[in-house]
Amino acid sequence: MAAKIVDVLRAELGDAAVLTDPAGTRPYARDMMPLAPSGTPVAVVFPRTVAQVQTCVRRCAEAGVPIVPRGAGSGLTGAANAVDGCVVLVTTKLDEIVEVDPDNRLAVVQAGVVNKDLRTAAAAHGLFYPPDPSSFEWCTIGGNLATNAGGLCCVKYGVTADHVLGVQVVLADGELLRTGRRTVKGVAGYDLTRLFVGSEGTLGIITEATVTLRPLPQAPGTLVAAFDSTQAAGEAVIGVVKAGVVPSLMEIMDAISIRAVEAYLRCAVGTPGCQALLLCQSDSGGAPAERELAAIARICADAGATATQTTVDPAEGNLLLQARRVSLTALEQQGHCLTEDVAVPRTRIADLISGCARIGAEVALPVAVVGHAADGNMHPTILFDPSVPGESDRARHAFDRILELGLALGGTITGEHGVGRIKREWLAREVGPVGVRVHHRVKQAFDPDGLFNPGAMLLPRPSAD
Amino acid sequence: MAAKIVDVLRAELGDAAVLTDPAGTRPYARDMMPLAPSGTPVAVVFPRTVAQVQTCVRRCAEAGVPIVPRGAGSGLTGAANAVDGCVVLVTTKLDEIVEVDPDNRLAVVQAGVVNKDLRTAAAAHGLFYPPDPSSFEWCTIGGNLATNAGGLCCVKYGVTADHVLGVQVVLADGELLRTGRRTVKGVAGYDLTRLFVGSEGTLGIITEATVTLRPLPQAPGTLVAAFDSTQAAGEAVIGVVKAGVVPSLMEIMDAISIRAVEAYLRCAVGTPGCQALLLCQSDSGGAPAERELAAIARICADAGATATQTTVDPAEGNLLLQARRVSLTALEQQGHCLTEDVAVPRTRIADLISGCARIGAEVALPVAVVGHAADGNMHPTILFDPSVPGESDRARHAFDRILELGLALGGTITGEHGVGRIKREWLAREVGPVGVRVHHRVKQAFDPDGLFNPGAMLLPRPSAD
Repeated sequence: MAAKIVDVLRAELGDAAVLTDPAGTRPYARDMMPLAPSGTPVAVVFPRTVAQVQTCVRRCAEAGVPIVPRGAGSGLTGAANAVDGCVVLVTTKLDEIVEVDPDNRLAVVQAGVVNKDLRTAAAAHGLFYPPDPSSFEWCTIGGNLATNAGGLCCVKYGVTADHVLGVQVVLADGELLRTGRRTVKGVAGYDLTRLFVGSEGTLGIITEATVTLRPLPQAPGTLVAAFDSTQAAGEAVIGVVKAGVVPSLMEIMDAISIRAVEAYLRCAVGTPGCQALLLCQSDSGGAPAERELAAIARICADAGATATQTTVDPAEGNLLLQARRVSLTALEQQGHCLTEDVAVPRTRIADLISGCARIGAEVALPVAVVGHAADGNMHPTILFDPSVPGESDRARHAFDRILELGLALGGTITGEHGVGRIKREWLAREVGPVGVRVHHRVKQAFDPDGLFNPGAMLLPRPSAD
Repeated sequence: MAAKIVDVLRAELGDAAVLTDPAGTRPYARDMMPLAPSGTPVAVVFPRTVAQVQTCVRRCAEAGVPIVPRGAGSGLTGAANAVDGCVVLVTTKLDEIVEVDPDNRLAVVQAGVVNKDLRTAAAAHGLFYPPDPSSFEWCTIGGNLATNAGGLCCVKYGVTADHVLGVQVVLADGELLRTGRRTVKGVAGYDLTRLFVGSEGTLGIITEATVTLRPLPQAPGTLVAAFDSTQAAGEAVIGVVKAGVVPSLMEIMDAISIRAVEAYLRCAVGTPGCQALLLCQSDSGGAPAERELAAIARICADAGATATQTTVDPAEGNLLLQARRVSLTALEQQGHCLTEDVAVPRTRIADLISGCARIGAEVALPVAVVGHAADGNMHPTILFDPSVPGESDRARHAFDRILELGLALGGTITGEHGVGRIKREWLAREVGPVGVRVHHRVKQAFDPDGLFNPGAMLLPRPSAD
């Protein structure tokens, strides 16, 4: 059967668009999450048109072959990992920016358009596509939508879902569905757009999206505040939220990440021995930016900051932000990194960071915490050496304990990365048995044969339901 | 069977919570849309607890009795209208404000809480629940969620859906589902929250919601600009959008509504004989508000405004806004009003208004247009006299022609009121045959026996699917 579907797809898409050689398919068999399971695809296909996507879906349906949709593969949960015998459908050749409509501040783009290319096209009209996952230079809009990607912009501008007006989706029967609209508001029917956004390729294959654009913001002003305790930094975050100041970026780093960055950059970061840093920006420009940064500086001082530094010079601001930018690279110098993605209510950030330190001590592995402070979305990163017996297991144990802690603090198991193949048990725990049943019913409604990305997000359906 | 379900519900809820007398049930048999069909319920019930809602759903399911969920009945589409033999389930006794969490800027409220009461409770903490449908003094949060209600705030703050973190829903089998989270961000599983918001009671009964709050805005400054043509006013709207200025309110009125208001208030509005008004506010406070209003004033002047008037005095601003506030009352002095709710891309507002004038001429009835200019959501209002033979039919014909025009201009049939029982054919036209099939599949997944609000939003399922 494997040979047959390959022949069929070659006939439909052309030989060059169908990879089957293991050396060629291997790079498309998993995303950036090392711990998630993955299988071996029978083929990796690169459709160039929506019609070809429809054809692939129809042919695979006829043959009962699963399809794993994939963008650039920058995901961090195994959501794009192949399963044995599947076809990996790569959307990167659907790369047309169909339209930029500056007067209505929207763009229509195919799924394979790279995030950065959309940003560049929008900027040519003085416009801005805010969602900025850290992989924005190479990740695709289709992948961003499938995972409802976040980024640094979210505190002020929201996540990917907040910028999507509608999608075009190939359904399990090969039909093409258009959801949503081109207008700012609209309530005609169920919100199918939002159902597909974040569904990790389990309900259909997004081939096109209509997204909203905003005016380009001003060059940012930057503030860095150093604290003697994560508790004090957490208080500052609560204070900023309470004051109603909305920075365009507000990141937090704990002591382990600060020390790692200091070792990597070979220079001091913050104040000597500081235990936490807050890094904030305002893109409101001119006097408004200065007012916002001054307000944040006051709040940080009130919360006990040992030092704050503010600049409206973009180059200097970039230098200040460098500590955050290089943090993962710096941590990777010290060991393998297993990165978490819990989100907690903003009042519990300090509790999460201290809890991660406790969990690190329990498993005898460092757990560094960096994160998007203003929306409570933290990325605790467990450092381990897989060549040391037991460390991988202890890292995985810490990973689970952090998820447990996140839920106990009133949070969620994933703020922006998704569930994929790494947190399926945890999704079940977060949404509960009724939630799991409803998820399966929705999946069944869209994909009755279970051929779209099987094993992503949901554990196999309990036989009782 | 009708008698039996009534006995069962009386035993479960108590006699006082179950109305069956036609005089008592009649006020609960329809909402505020006069043209939508409605039937006669066997009972109207007022559960006081979520457990009682679950019991009602289970007992009705056992008896095969449809349930029409209802908040305050302020809807404008017949979505809460009874069907023959149904139980109308009124959520107004579920009226507890469960929690206001100022530090995390959220509130948990039961479905029957009145919008204004939530606003008041939030204001006690210096916080603000933005969604403000014009019925905010008496409509319920449950109804707001079921219809994804809009209002004047949307241009700056978004619609109801943008302020919902999660819901508690009683499903068709009586189970209680909790969706969403208390964190700012979260991507765990399908976005079921958004699926229920705007689903008009067809998928489940929302009993509680977790909503986000914002800091209270400043007292607004106000600007009114008069124009010699709707085209010029439309240009000003495009200019404001292009400039990236985000007013907290931007409403448009056409000549018919201006003249109606002048007759009602017995005073001139705008400039003598003006053809369109733009009414704008900024709630940014102080110098920022003055800058925003000055920018809007310049854009209006450039677009050909014959006069603009600006004030930062809230009382004077209220006077200026009075024209918009009384517009529906003023129009009602001139005849019965049939109010539309199309939304078009912002560049097409002037085309929509001129098209409505043309349609009015064709059916020989006045069509006044007021609307939320900044988001393109227009409320053309057809004036007619049902006692004059043929006028009701001509009004309905104009209603359909305006929907056709809205779609032709790239818009949607409903910006904020919903589909209900008045636009079901038009929903099918907007979403197309594939969209209709998907809607039915979703409905089937949640409500396999079709007992939740049958006949709302969706026409009967085609037998082929």
